[in-house]
Amino acid sequence: MKPFMDKDFLLQTEVAKKLYHEYAAQVPVLDYHCHLNPQEIAEDIHFKNMTELWLGADHYKWRVMRSNGVPEKYITGDAPDEDKFHAFAKALPNCIGNPMYHWCHLELQRYFGIYETLSEKNWKKIYDTCNARLAEPDMSAKKLIQMSGVTLVCTTDDPIDDLHYHEEIAADKEFDVQVLPAWRPDLAMSPEKEGFVEYIGKLSAVSGISIVDFTSLKQALRKRLDFFAERGCLVSDHGLDYAEFCPLAEEEEEMLVKKSLSGASLTGEELRQFRTMMMLFLGEEYKKRGWVMQLHYGAKRENNELVFQSAGANAGIDCINPRGFAADVADFMNALNKDGNLPKTIIYSLNPTDNALIGTMIGCFQNEDAHGKIQQGAAWWFNDHKYGMEEHMNSLASLSLLGNFIGMLTDSRSFISYPRHEYFRRILCNYIGNLVEQGEYPEDYELLGEIVKNISYYNAVNYFGFDLQ
Amino acid sequence: MKPFMDKDFLLQTEVAKKLYHEYAAQVPVLDYHCHLNPQEIAEDIHFKNMTELWLGADHYKWRVMRSNGVPEKYITGDAPDEDKFHAFAKALPNCIGNPMYHWCHLELQRYFGIYETLSEKNWKKIYDTCNARLAEPDMSAKKLIQMSGVTLVCTTDDPIDDLHYHEEIAADKEFDVQVLPAWRPDLAMSPEKEGFVEYIGKLSAVSGISIVDFTSLKQALRKRLDFFAERGCLVSDHGLDYAEFCPLAEEEEEMLVKKSLSGASLTGEELRQFRTMMMLFLGEEYKKRGWVMQLHYGAKRENNELVFQSAGANAGIDCINPRGFAADVADFMNALNKDGNLPKTIIYSLNPTDNALIGTMIGCFQNEDAHGKIQQGAAWWFNDHKYGMEEHMNSLASLSLLGNFIGMLTDSRSFISYPRHEYFRRILCNYIGNLVEQGEYPEDYELLGEIVKNISYYNAVNYFGFDLQ
Amino acid sequence: MKPFMDKDFLLQTEVAKKLYHEYAAQVPVLDYHCHLNPQEIAEDIHFKNMTELWLGADHYKWRVMRSNGVPEKYITGDAPDEDKFHAFAKALPNCIGNPMYHWCHLELQRYFGIYETLSEKNWKKIYDTCNARLAEPDMSAKKLIQMSGVTLVCTTDDPIDDLHYHEEIAADKEFDVQVLPAWRPDLAMSPEKEGFVEYIGKLSAVSGISIVDFTSLKQALRKRLDFFAERGCLVSDHGLDYAEFCPLAEEEEEMLVKKSLSGASLTGEELRQFRTMMMLFLGEEYKKRGWVMQLHYGAKRENNELVFQSAGANAGIDCINPRGFAADVADFMNALNKDGNLPKTIIYSLNPTDNALIGTMIGCFQNEDAHGKIQQGAAWWFNDHKYGMEEHMNSLASLSLLGNFIGMLTDSRSFISYPRHEYFRRILCNYIGNLVEQGEYPEDYELLGEIVKNISYYNAVNYFGFDLQ
Repeated sequence: MKPFMDKDFLLQTEVAKKLYHEYAAQVPVLDYHCHLNPQEIAEDIHFKNMTELWLGADHYKWRVMRSNGVPEKYITGDAPDEDKFHAFAKALPNCIGNPMYHWCHLELQRYFGIYETLSEKNWKKIYDTCNARLAEPDMSAKKLIQMSGVTLVCTTDDPIDDLHYHEEIAADKEFDVQVLPAWRPDLAMSPEKEGFVEYIGKLSAVSGISIVDFTSLKQALRKRLDFFAERGCLVSDHGLDYAEFCPLAEEEEEMLVKKSLSGASLTGEELRQFRTMMMLFLGEEYKKRGWVMQLHYGAKRENNELVFQSAGANAGIDCINPRGFAADVADFMNALNKDGNLPKTIIYSLNPTDNALIGTMIGCFQNEDAHGKIQQGAAWWFNDHKYGMEEHMNSLASLSLLGNFIGMLTDSRSFISYPRHEYFRRILCNYIGNLVEQGEYPEDYELLGEIVKNISYYNAVNYFGFDLQ
Repeated sequence: MKPFMDKDFLLQTEVAKKLYHEYAAQVPVLDYHCHLNPQEIAEDIHFKNMTELWLGADHYKWRVMRSNGVPEKYITGDAPDEDKFHAFAKALPNCIGNPMYHWCHLELQRYFGIYETLSEKNWKKIYDTCNARLAEPDMSAKKLIQMSGVTLVCTTDDPIDDLHYHEEIAADKEFDVQVLPAWRPDLAMSPEKEGFVEYIGKLSAVSGISIVDFTSLKQALRKRLDFFAERGCLVSDHGLDYAEFCPLAEEEEEMLVKKSLSGASLTGEELRQFRTMMMLFLGEEYKKRGWVMQLHYGAKRENNELVFQSAGANAGIDCINPRGFAADVADFMNALNKDGNLPKTIIYSLNPTDNALIGTMIGCFQNEDAHGKIQQGAAWWFNDHKYGMEEHMNSLASLSLLGNFIGMLTDSRSFISYPRHEYFRRILCNYIGNLVEQGEYPEDYELLGEIVKNISYYNAVNYFGFDLQ
Repeated sequence: MKPFMDKDFLLQTEVAKKLYHEYAAQVPVLDYHCHLNPQEIAEDIHFKNMTELWLGADHYKWRVMRSNGVPEKYITGDAPDEDKFHAFAKALPNCIGNPMYHWCHLELQRYFGIYETLSEKNWKKIYDTCNARLAEPDMSAKKLIQMSGVTLVCTTDDPIDDLHYHEEIAADKEFDVQVLPAWRPDLAMSPEKEGFVEYIGKLSAVSGISIVDFTSLKQALRKRLDFFAERGCLVSDHGLDYAEFCPLAEEEEEMLVKKSLSGASLTGEELRQFRTMMMLFLGEEYKKRGWVMQLHYGAKRENNELVFQSAGANAGIDCINPRGFAADVADFMNALNKDGNLPKTIIYSLNPTDNALIGTMIGCFQNEDAHGKIQQGAAWWFNDHKYGMEEHMNSLASLSLLGNFIGMLTDSRSFISYPRHEYFRRILCNYIGNLVEQGEYPEDYELLGEIVKNISYYNAVNYFGFDLQ
């Protein structure tokens, strides 16, 4: 029997162990998509206790607690921090087979040197030990990132953001991690949302372009794209509830933007047209700048109104939308590609049953722009667990070239979620190790080591074109 | 090599063996959803031979025979019983990898002490041996249930049923198994079916409420709900072809029911509205009574008219409806939940590709009402096999708290299908055993044993609130 | 560790090895569906070099190259043959976990006696060695088929084809492989395609029936069906983008065909009606002749216009259409079946998430016409890899009778793709071997050997009714 989560955790073969320890574990971490708050990095914050660190904003853990029958008071409510931690600790042993069990214990091991398993029995001791450690000076936001072996982080930022926290971070010469912005213009594409017109007003102000139609909207966005580019941005990101491709005749585009700016409600079809024309415009701009376009499809959000009213957005009440991803995405990519405007693209779907569809679709648009120009993103959100990653790797390897995969990201709000890269690399090495052990790939460590290091780090460096040589 | 179906069947690790034999096998069977006929229990029937017992009503076996090219005469027709059994025995060896192979041999082992494998070579000997055994007095309906270690069974009953067989069973003090009714009001929700108006007439009669509109329909149903509750009912069940959520303005509900009672045809949309308003009403009633709401989604029934005409319903001619389950179910649950009316709910979909969708959806509505208030039901019908259960467990564990799973049910019409609980428990222990052997969960038998016993039995006892302490 | 791709490749247990070597490997190859060009067989062509053989028409390899960032010039363009081979060899090591890695090395082993792994290091040596071997007289089309142990091949042919190459092949008494036509009437069912009216003109000419309405269209097709039948055809094939069932009143059918022949555009609904009535007509004709109906569902083709313009059809720019297969297929089969007109049918879907749906659907229409009358076809196209085949077998075995499965086909344009049968058989034996090793099926080689030989060969012989005894 393998010991619980020891140094060979998840590594079932000798090949896997060798690949992980001698190759995967030897390269840095590049986190090209996360939701860290740049202000918290710039201010190099500390955490008052484990509840703030672990339970302050982690909707994964909130779901665990709710599934264990914990009242909302102990989750997003006003119960004392210690009671919240206790309630979580009681739920954890029920997470057998859940990534939360591994994430928590990896974090306890890597950041706190704790190798016990957290439960009802020892929760108080662990809580106190962790809190004492958190009070030490080297447990700040920047120090946590540095001790995790990270070379570069991309945050997620709105086009109207002035990025001054990024400038502050860059100005700190003691801090040798690149923290780059990523462009996420979801609000600019949401005329149906309250506050859209106000948002466009802010975009006008920050860009110095008075936005009155599609032409001026595009001008304003181009100025902000350039602004982001000057601050090192190489990545965009879109959260798209649905796959769609509803192109509008060019002469009607101006009218549609004017209508949206007037505050009038757009029909469902008009919204689809609005989003399509924005995506076509932005895709072309990304291509011009050599940026990567990330497309996150298929979340159905805020399903539980009661919790939404009390706890707000990102409260753990989202689920898969089974119609979120579809064949229309091929038509969208073709529309850009036929005019030479398709940028490097990463496709994520929240529905794991889309794996094969995505794997076959990306193969239609590969070309010499990059190794693996169109990527299937790593197993995302609800799929970010051992089983989901194995399914993803099996599908990607069977349908595409695993060797060109750009690998893992945290997608996280936490400063100690970097062990998810370790988790991914262990699963990757185990997957490849099994192929070798079964005689399905030669035991050639020159090839294997390169593949593993590339997927763990170097493919992403090269794909995005980060300055990390 | 492991011997064929010995005591360690399906248990691949030492941990799995220990968990099964020392924990899972030590707790009783609770069958909270089945299709046993209460009359047959009350009358404590015997079976004239193996053909009646095995092939009389088992559409799974009928499908096996048809897939083996057996003429319908030997399946649902008038061929001699012995010839039918012979035809089935010939087909069985082709069921390699099919649960039928295991179910049959588990039943032969557990109820008949036969450890041979059934085939063309020995079918006659086994037929005769089984028939002789069936003639013995202890092979009656009640005795079979008792010797299976069952403490409680929920049958499936129509709201107009007078439940007198349940009363008869309860009156038998020799029979220490609780046989409770479960509420299945499908007919009351099907204005499109012939006989709907007549059915509502019967509901009027049995409830003493003259049903003329939605108000009186609800009154009548409430009376029947109370009647069922008085007889120990704690569970409802719905067979829903499609996921849907089409709420109707309250002032139009009365008209729609009146239209349906007039015998007029409802449009597709009206039917969706009718079902939605009934589900909202019933969900609230279940919540008030502390009942569990079971939702079975996505069967496309009676696909083969030829067989349907000759053999009737439940003849093995159903398949998955791939559009049966969808995101609308989240909207339905939210509509109940926002007013505090969402009962404990178990969601089943016939399509295994819905696993992840369900796993993410249930997490949106968990709360302090119960540990695992919203459940993904055990792998159902066409998914009730080793592969389907492993997929279900992998998905459920990855997305929710496996430790709170209420576990297995037979969904069966047979008095000897209880080994399916054994089958499930073996697969469960094997799944958990692999996690432990691979170092993914600690080898802590206090925790593990509790998890296994809970999923096998105690979670269901507590979840439904049965009187079994 | 198992050596790389040795004689026990993919065989993980002793049972699997025994089943493969003593049973599966002992029976011939029957390739009931492929895209070999009859002219190339009749002319017994040679290949000038490995680029022509491997890269001339293989869109799987083109996708590999594009995914590795290779410019189109080296794929379908005019780069020198040697450079194309070099570019492919460089990409191959990145195909870890991809069937391409195994297919290529199986072909190098079986046809060229090369046991090295192809890469940047040895590509030139292997290229030269293979080219020298290709120049030898026994490396012709017919010889390659013969040395692969093939007894019968079905090509894919248009109803208007005069099949004279098939006659030429049959006349060659030295060539002991049956090469039979298969009927693929896709063009006759595509009024939306340019050239439809012209095509119908050719059909008129070749059948001697002036086609002016549905009656005469059916007459013409019947004559061609008879013509194909006289030349040994027993199989039809349909490429269907979507599942659909839109029957039209009989009295409107004539008008719809007349409209299509007038060159007028049909609406979307009319196209669905046209295809439905054609499928109902043809299904009945197949049934009359004892033919098998193959239905290939769910490809979304030619997604990349740029590549399509330069490289044409079958250029590796297709993907899964997730709406391609659906429950409507049950209604279509029922419409034929209720009048006794449902032929033996093989259903393929490009979307692997349809596995369970198909597995449940075929069970609704089985009858005494054949063992496994309605088949789920082997893992097709994008699913033709180890993972896809294992998923397919798991699903098929769990839901149907694996023992009646008619097994593998190449679906290939290549004369050296027969190792895909070997690949399939190894995976099959490994699947069954695991069941036996785990105690889930008895170690009875009489039964097991028969099952393995049947799935590898004899089931197909019997199912199609080929003259191969």
